[in-house]
Amino acid sequence: MKMNTLQDYIDRLNQLNFKEMYQNDFFLTWEKTDDELEAVWLVADALRFMRENNISTKVFESGLGISLFRDNSTRTRFSFASACNLLGLEVQDLDEGKSQIAHGETVRETANMISFMADVIGIRDDMYIGKGNAYMHEVADSVEQGNKDGILEQRPTLVNLQCDIDHPTQCMADMLHIIHEFGGVENLKGKKLAMSWAYSPSYGKPLSVPQGVIGLMTRMGMDVVLAHPEGYDVMPEVEEVARKNAEKSGGTFTKTNSMEEAFKDADIVYPKSWAPFAAMEERTELYGNGDFDGIDRLEKELLAQNAKHKDWACTEELMKTTKDGKALYLHCLPADITGLSCEEGEVDESVFDRYRNPLYKEASYKPYVIAAMIFLSKFEDPQAILKKLEENKKPRIFK
Amino acid sequence: MKMNTLQDYIDRLNQLNFKEMYQNDFFLTWEKTDDELEAVWLVADALRFMRENNISTKVFESGLGISLFRDNSTRTRFSFASACNLLGLEVQDLDEGKSQIAHGETVRETANMISFMADVIGIRDDMYIGKGNAYMHEVADSVEQGNKDGILEQRPTLVNLQCDIDHPTQCMADMLHIIHEFGGVENLKGKKLAMSWAYSPSYGKPLSVPQGVIGLMTRMGMDVVLAHPEGYDVMPEVEEVARKNAEKSGGTFTKTNSMEEAFKDADIVYPKSWAPFAAMEERTELYGNGDFDGIDRLEKELLAQNAKHKDWACTEELMKTTKDGKALYLHCLPADITGLSCEEGEVDESVFDRYRNPLYKEASYKPYVIAAMIFLSKFEDPQAILKKLEENKKPRIFK
Amino acid sequence: MKMNTLQDYIDRLNQLNFKEMYQNDFFLTWEKTDDELEAVWLVADALRFMRENNISTKVFESGLGISLFRDNSTRTRFSFASACNLLGLEVQDLDEGKSQIAHGETVRETANMISFMADVIGIRDDMYIGKGNAYMHEVADSVEQGNKDGILEQRPTLVNLQCDIDHPTQCMADMLHIIHEFGGVENLKGKKLAMSWAYSPSYGKPLSVPQGVIGLMTRMGMDVVLAHPEGYDVMPEVEEVARKNAEKSGGTFTKTNSMEEAFKDADIVYPKSWAPFAAMEERTELYGNGDFDGIDRLEKELLAQNAKHKDWACTEELMKTTKDGKALYLHCLPADITGLSCEEGEVDESVFDRYRNPLYKEASYKPYVIAAMIFLSKFEDPQAILKKLEENKKPRIFK
Repeated sequence: MKMNTLQDYIDRLNQLNFKEMYQNDFFLTWEKTDDELEAVWLVADALRFMRENNISTKVFESGLGISLFRDNSTRTRFSFASACNLLGLEVQDLDEGKSQIAHGETVRETANMISFMADVIGIRDDMYIGKGNAYMHEVADSVEQGNKDGILEQRPTLVNLQCDIDHPTQCMADMLHIIHEFGGVENLKGKKLAMSWAYSPSYGKPLSVPQGVIGLMTRMGMDVVLAHPEGYDVMPEVEEVARKNAEKSGGTFTKTNSMEEAFKDADIVYPKSWAPFAAMEERTELYGNGDFDGIDRLEKELLAQNAKHKDWACTEELMKTTKDGKALYLHCLPADITGLSCEEGEVDESVFDRYRNPLYKEASYKPYVIAAMIFLSKFEDPQAILKKLEENKKPRIFK
Repeated sequence: MKMNTLQDYIDRLNQLNFKEMYQNDFFLTWEKTDDELEAVWLVADALRFMRENNISTKVFESGLGISLFRDNSTRTRFSFASACNLLGLEVQDLDEGKSQIAHGETVRETANMISFMADVIGIRDDMYIGKGNAYMHEVADSVEQGNKDGILEQRPTLVNLQCDIDHPTQCMADMLHIIHEFGGVENLKGKKLAMSWAYSPSYGKPLSVPQGVIGLMTRMGMDVVLAHPEGYDVMPEVEEVARKNAEKSGGTFTKTNSMEEAFKDADIVYPKSWAPFAAMEERTELYGNGDFDGIDRLEKELLAQNAKHKDWACTEELMKTTKDGKALYLHCLPADITGLSCEEGEVDESVFDRYRNPLYKEASYKPYVIAAMIFLSKFEDPQAILKKLEENKKPRIFK
Repeated sequence: MKMNTLQDYIDRLNQLNFKEMYQNDFFLTWEKTDDELEAVWLVADALRFMRENNISTKVFESGLGISLFRDNSTRTRFSFASACNLLGLEVQDLDEGKSQIAHGETVRETANMISFMADVIGIRDDMYIGKGNAYMHEVADSVEQGNKDGILEQRPTLVNLQCDIDHPTQCMADMLHIIHEFGGVENLKGKKLAMSWAYSPSYGKPLSVPQGVIGLMTRMGMDVVLAHPEGYDVMPEVEEVARKNAEKSGGTFTKTNSMEEAFKDADIVYPKSWAPFAAMEERTELYGNGDFDGIDRLEKELLAQNAKHKDWACTEELMKTTKDGKALYLHCLPADITGLSCEEGEVDESVFDRYRNPLYKEASYKPYVIAAMIFLSKFEDPQAILKKLEENKKPRIFK
């Protein structure tokens, strides 16, 4: 996908249909067409190309990018901030600690109050099943309405920075990394990808990554295997999405309770811990009822359940069984590294170390993917804008 | 006030005298002349006009807007951030948690230390009677002196984002909303406005809004009625200001202990909870003495006192008694909505819902009002600047 | 050093060799050549000259300045934010509270994750002996490697905002203040500077200021005296640096346990509290072992030890003994002022008040010093950039 001139990216974009992305939001990858996803990757690469050639991509003279994080975050926070900054938007955090939301303010009201000069809203809300994505839609509907009613002079578009269902900015970055590593989408047909559960001493990690991965990677004609111990299922709706994707793309989607089977001859492996879907549903209910004793009990149960599966780890032995013993190892980071960040974790230190550079490159696509999502939602004719930016030749760093 | 071309705003500005605003601060509306207030509204509308027509109003290539919030805030925080961003200033929060102010640093020192590259300082300090406004003056005097002494290369101007006496950015936005709703200042003569206390389950809400409202709205020749239960008086000095304003403007300022009387045939109603002035004075003293038991006792007393006045609510029945049953309903938000945000509150849900759009529009003027205050304090000839910005035709969003 | 035209600064820069600063970091002043330090002062003054003449110095269209503060800070935080803003970089705080660093993430990984679009990283980490500076080097090495490995498109440079060894941005600002007060470096030969310990009711103040002062001021041919009660020694390595500097510069570096002796006929005095080096080493070890009882015990010991030296204060009497009774009084602020911020402290209120303006001017150089460090690390030919900026004549404030 790496091209030699900006025009190459523009030429390819001209062959795609993504007009629905204009003034639209990005919630789930499977709500987007193949053309739309490719447009995101193309624009992401084009923006990176321009930055690396010191061409300014600042398209906003002023404007805010609102970020709302319900959960701690370094990577996603900095990726969003970097994406906004790259385009000229200033990030303003909606810190619910500082704000009055807690005091019975309705979502609709808050959404409008923070959006008078907002061009984009990025939300991370992945803690509770059935809540995060729904909340994002509430916010998006509110500002859409606010714009229609003449309250908001512009319509801020929403970027899902991780919800209970999908983690699109992560998985789109993962996929762009894969595309670059394999030299193009066309080379992915028939490749085997193992999305596997792995042991971590912590508990309650979101399901959005494994779900996002099977919901996206199954669209490339790959053989996607979802592996986890019994009881660690993900949302059935997303498995259904994966199945349909595989059919349509000429690939396959299979499940197994054996990490070994998943890794066998795999071209790509994604070993990562997550919590059982059923348990996360239970936790959501317990929180709803304010039953904190119940939550403590649940946590103990889950940790005990986890402890039974310490053998689910990405070891050197397992890696040897992958394609030529050198499958591409993926992770959204941070990983639980055996002997480094914990006693027993998701991956051997020696394996992780061997893949540090690819892993960091994988992460480096996220700011560009977010910027591309914003870019495509803000301009009706992105190709023309890219062209003009190149012609302007305004340097990012003065020279 | 809505005009068809930027030149219309400029032409009107040319008829006004507001030269005192240059390099000056904005503390209280009644410290400003009628011309100066109109200039704020004109520039606010002009900046909005330009933004809506995608003309950049970025007048600062660099510079900081310092914000200091002694109290939680979503709206005001985002309004100030939006205003700064609209003009090209980057917001830097002075979070007293993070800072060393707590450690016995003098106001003068801090004010200078944060202002080396500050063009504006916005402060919200409304908690204690006799403190907030005084503190803002200390800060403004400090940086004025710092600039004279050659410590500060520029003189940051201060915008009062809410003090113990007035909430000028809120009330100026409220007024701009009224002006637009009634089609111009000239149509306000003889209109009846009811600033009324209303019941809220919470306690200790600032007096700055009712005080700001009677201190400003009495200047338009309106019949302004201040209604509250016995014992819920506001600062006598501000009532005096309102009286003088009314005389001068040919309107009236009256007081009543009956919400019904205030609402009767009112064209505009502003039902809102606040704490008794005397009680707030007592609280300030108790804090001064670190008497926290006393504060708890006072809070209990006030809540009990409040509970006696649950009948002070903006109900459908009351709204029916207003002019043609459809007075313009105002609130600074968030409102305590009966049945939504609380069991019994300031306003019926059905009333509030009917006015959601106007209420959000009312709020939407605040960022522009703040930006106008900054703009007028920074440019000796704002009309020329507006003209040049239009001629530059630099788009806010690249095209 | 104040010059009449920007060309004067450029002409002087042309006579210096500072090419090693390009793409390099700023850790300790004694790791830099005399030319490199002078270049920082010249560019700082040049940037100030341009700002005061309303010439924009915005050299970045986009880009982040990452700040990481392990300790509270008002001044340094605002100085860094001001410096970044002056050059066009947006500050993004890496708040370890909000971030996942605490959760076993390696420095190398975090450094890369936050740096995809970072042009500069500013770190304050002064709490523990042997840790802060080492941590900064880890971060700098990580991003240097990340850039080499193609993970980071640019190489963010690091600015030491205070570590356990030195406080270069503070001391470089102090020195620039001295240079301006004495009318040039050439006038400093033979001047006497007293870096003296002074009593403060607080405990455990960093050693980085006294160490930074003796490590830098000894390079100007001055007679630098380090005075402190027995047991309040600073790092021996830094004393060694000071000794060598003095030899080389033709000045002297002496030590005394008498504040009176240090102040006698001094041209410049810097009375300030700090903790004994040995005690800080012990504290670091206690923290390492999580021995919090030990830390409490140590604190009590140190406070008791401090209390024995309340006579170490910058009084009017002492000031009278300095050169003509009016030595230049320096402090990094905030000072512990007897009778104002504490009962007994570092300095008499009357002395401090007399020097308020010079002290605030001293502080005002810090943002420019930081901006100069960034500027010199980012441009291979800073003189050409300064020249072009002047030719562009883009105003900082629109006109």
